[in-house]
Amino acid sequence: MKARYIFLDHAATTPIDERVLSAMMPYLTESFGNPSAIYSSGRVAKSALADARAKVAEVLGAKADEIVFTGSGTEANALALFGVLRKHGGALVTATTEHHAILSNARQLEKEGVYVTYVGVDINGFVHIDELKTAITPETTLVSIMYANNEIGTIAPMEDIARIVKTERERRKTAGETRPIYFHTDACQAAGYLSLNVRELGVDLMTMNGSKIYGPKGIGALYVRKGVLLTPLWHGGGQENRLRSGTENVAGAVGFAEALRIAQSMREEEGKRLTELRDYFIEQLFKIIPKIVLNGPDLSSGHGTRRIPNNVNISILDIEGEAYLLYLDHKGIEASTGSACDSVTLDPSHVILALGRPYEYAHASLRFTLGRHTTKEDINYALSVMPGITETLRKISPISLPTDGTGLASRAAFAGQGMPHWEQKTKSKKH
Amino acid sequence: MKARYIFLDHAATTPIDERVLSAMMPYLTESFGNPSAIYSSGRVAKSALADARAKVAEVLGAKADEIVFTGSGTEANALALFGVLRKHGGALVTATTEHHAILSNARQLEKEGVYVTYVGVDINGFVHIDELKTAITPETTLVSIMYANNEIGTIAPMEDIARIVKTERERRKTAGETRPIYFHTDACQAAGYLSLNVRELGVDLMTMNGSKIYGPKGIGALYVRKGVLLTPLWHGGGQENRLRSGTENVAGAVGFAEALRIAQSMREEEGKRLTELRDYFIEQLFKIIPKIVLNGPDLSSGHGTRRIPNNVNISILDIEGEAYLLYLDHKGIEASTGSACDSVTLDPSHVILALGRPYEYAHASLRFTLGRHTTKEDINYALSVMPGITETLRKISPISLPTDGTGLASRAAFAGQGMPHWEQKTKSKKH
Repeated sequence: MKARYIFLDHAATTPIDERVLSAMMPYLTESFGNPSAIYSSGRVAKSALADARAKVAEVLGAKADEIVFTGSGTEANALALFGVLRKHGGALVTATTEHHAILSNARQLEKEGVYVTYVGVDINGFVHIDELKTAITPETTLVSIMYANNEIGTIAPMEDIARIVKTERERRKTAGETRPIYFHTDACQAAGYLSLNVRELGVDLMTMNGSKIYGPKGIGALYVRKGVLLTPLWHGGGQENRLRSGTENVAGAVGFAEALRIAQSMREEEGKRLTELRDYFIEQLFKIIPKIVLNGPDLSSGHGTRRIPNNVNISILDIEGEAYLLYLDHKGIEASTGSACDSVTLDPSHVILALGRPYEYAHASLRFTLGRHTTKEDINYALSVMPGITETLRKISPISLPTDGTGLASRAAFAGQGMPHWEQKTKSKKH
Repeated sequence: MKARYIFLDHAATTPIDERVLSAMMPYLTESFGNPSAIYSSGRVAKSALADARAKVAEVLGAKADEIVFTGSGTEANALALFGVLRKHGGALVTATTEHHAILSNARQLEKEGVYVTYVGVDINGFVHIDELKTAITPETTLVSIMYANNEIGTIAPMEDIARIVKTERERRKTAGETRPIYFHTDACQAAGYLSLNVRELGVDLMTMNGSKIYGPKGIGALYVRKGVLLTPLWHGGGQENRLRSGTENVAGAVGFAEALRIAQSMREEEGKRLTELRDYFIEQLFKIIPKIVLNGPDLSSGHGTRRIPNNVNISILDIEGEAYLLYLDHKGIEASTGSACDSVTLDPSHVILALGRPYEYAHASLRFTLGRHTTKEDINYALSVMPGITETLRKISPISLPTDGTGLASRAAFAGQGMPHWEQKTKSKKH
């Protein structure tokens, strides 16, 4: 029997907030109307959906009709990418550390003939801004860079990216070029901790997800700035401003809106609290476990504010992440790893590899993402069991790695089903 | 204040069954894990999802890995159509009376260069089988015909269609042709009343929808027979056998499975009960209201068993459907109309027009779809208010139509934003 249960994988999913579920319940029970119907119960549903849309828009500083509800963050990302590139043609610029929901759709677009550039990142996970500048050509119609990285917590230099896109847009205007250029960001991880004001961020498209912000699974949203035209992923009854046909998930939308409202209302206070807990956790880990490496923004060089408050990602060298997870699970702690984090492939984290770190580090990586219910006591408990687990696993480990990444096996030695796709040379690979 | 509330639009949506909501609740509260995670709470979610899949498969006489959960019936239809045609190329055969979720995606496929044939129907809504036979060529890769029509309740001759597809498949095998041919059916309306045994139906792909069977909104499913390869609508984490990436809607899937189990367990008894109510309703309507026309299978010519048990669709001549709905709503009765049934366009029902009936009949059409809680008392109440509403509206009506459809205005006279698209001559229009 587990003495305790400590969930430290809030970047994977979050429990539904009680207030969110309460807001949803009427639409899971008596108020079951179809928003497309013109009679009373249909109008009740339509009005609930409109209120949800307005609530989301308010958080974003946007207009209600700029919010499109989708079935997930992944779908919202796909709608942004396919939507822009199929509508306007042109080229896509993204980064090597994006979520699979971006990278694998970028790959699909390549198959459809789209020129895609994958901009690299530095050791902290920040996109190389100069590389990004060069990557944007007169052909570029979409720049998609995630707001906060789901694995290593890096917060993108949004202002810089928005400025670059804006500059190119103005250049085209002056030059009389008609091709549009849009900035999309996947804000699934950012939504709980960072400002989502779309005007301030300078984004044209933004992805959000209910299940990452104490809302329900099965609902996401895409902000689509007025004037940005997209081709929908499919057609039908014309719901969601013709961008996402199908009977609307009213309860989901209502829950999503309430979850976003709550998350944003407490983000500053909660961000401060979790930043302290995060820094304490990392500091202690370095004290009590030898041979560990922090992945993502380095706190000591002043990058603490550029790391999302709830993210701790470390490589505990000479251990294998998945085995470590199972030992943690046995102690009642749930976390994540870049060892084989994908649900399908056996590839180690493409994000940690993109930092320039060796395969072995990715295999040894552990991600702890703190949440609304995480306490210092929880962190102390994790700290109390980790030295023992580390010792046990290192005893049976066949390898002993240097912490500076030198003298390691070739990348291919630890590869799974295939190399991360941006590693492969494709016609689109520029950088 | 409304004295009564009688919902007669169960083809649009249904309330969630209490047992369904109970089954979902654990996954909306404590069991919130992400099914892709390998630790305890992830495994609980994964197992719930697997159980839901197995439960759906059992109803269908299928294997669990042949069930793909989607965000709606519309999305499942889109996955079937785009999935087959983008993967295998070739041509599509469908019918003029399909749901917009099929027709508008067929139209999109035409834009992508796919040859689409829209087979016509007879006055009862049955597809012309000879026309279907002719429409299938060696190029055809998908035949998509809905199981039961959402507007007029016509049950398709599934056996005949399956046999035709099978015959063509065998011909290709003998001839050494490698192009596949699949039979897809949209079973969203059928799922509550008809057998869904995929082997007996002879279907390769089948669409279902939670919100039409007393399950939650925001969840649908596509049966994909083993061996049928599809291109997904988008990519990402590889969930749902790589066909529908995105964190799974665990509560939705659990609810969908329970809803389908319940619906199928009571379908024979409920079908019998509703058939009697339906026939009583129609019979009385013809007695008490002059100048009405039944749309869909004619009961008097023995087609009663080929009409879905809960569907009543009548045109009350010399009235306008939407106005009628609002009067009904005022009396506490919620129903639907083919007058401007689409949520976006102003076109009258393409289904009623496809029967060969004039525009005026579509504008005057009312759909009542009975449900699990509908009683004879409800029907009697509807019957008690309809003559009065009819009289009121006819008094202010500028027109007086013949019931045989002769001498009516040209089709264009009542058209909305555009003619139903299958009316337009396209390069693909054969019949």
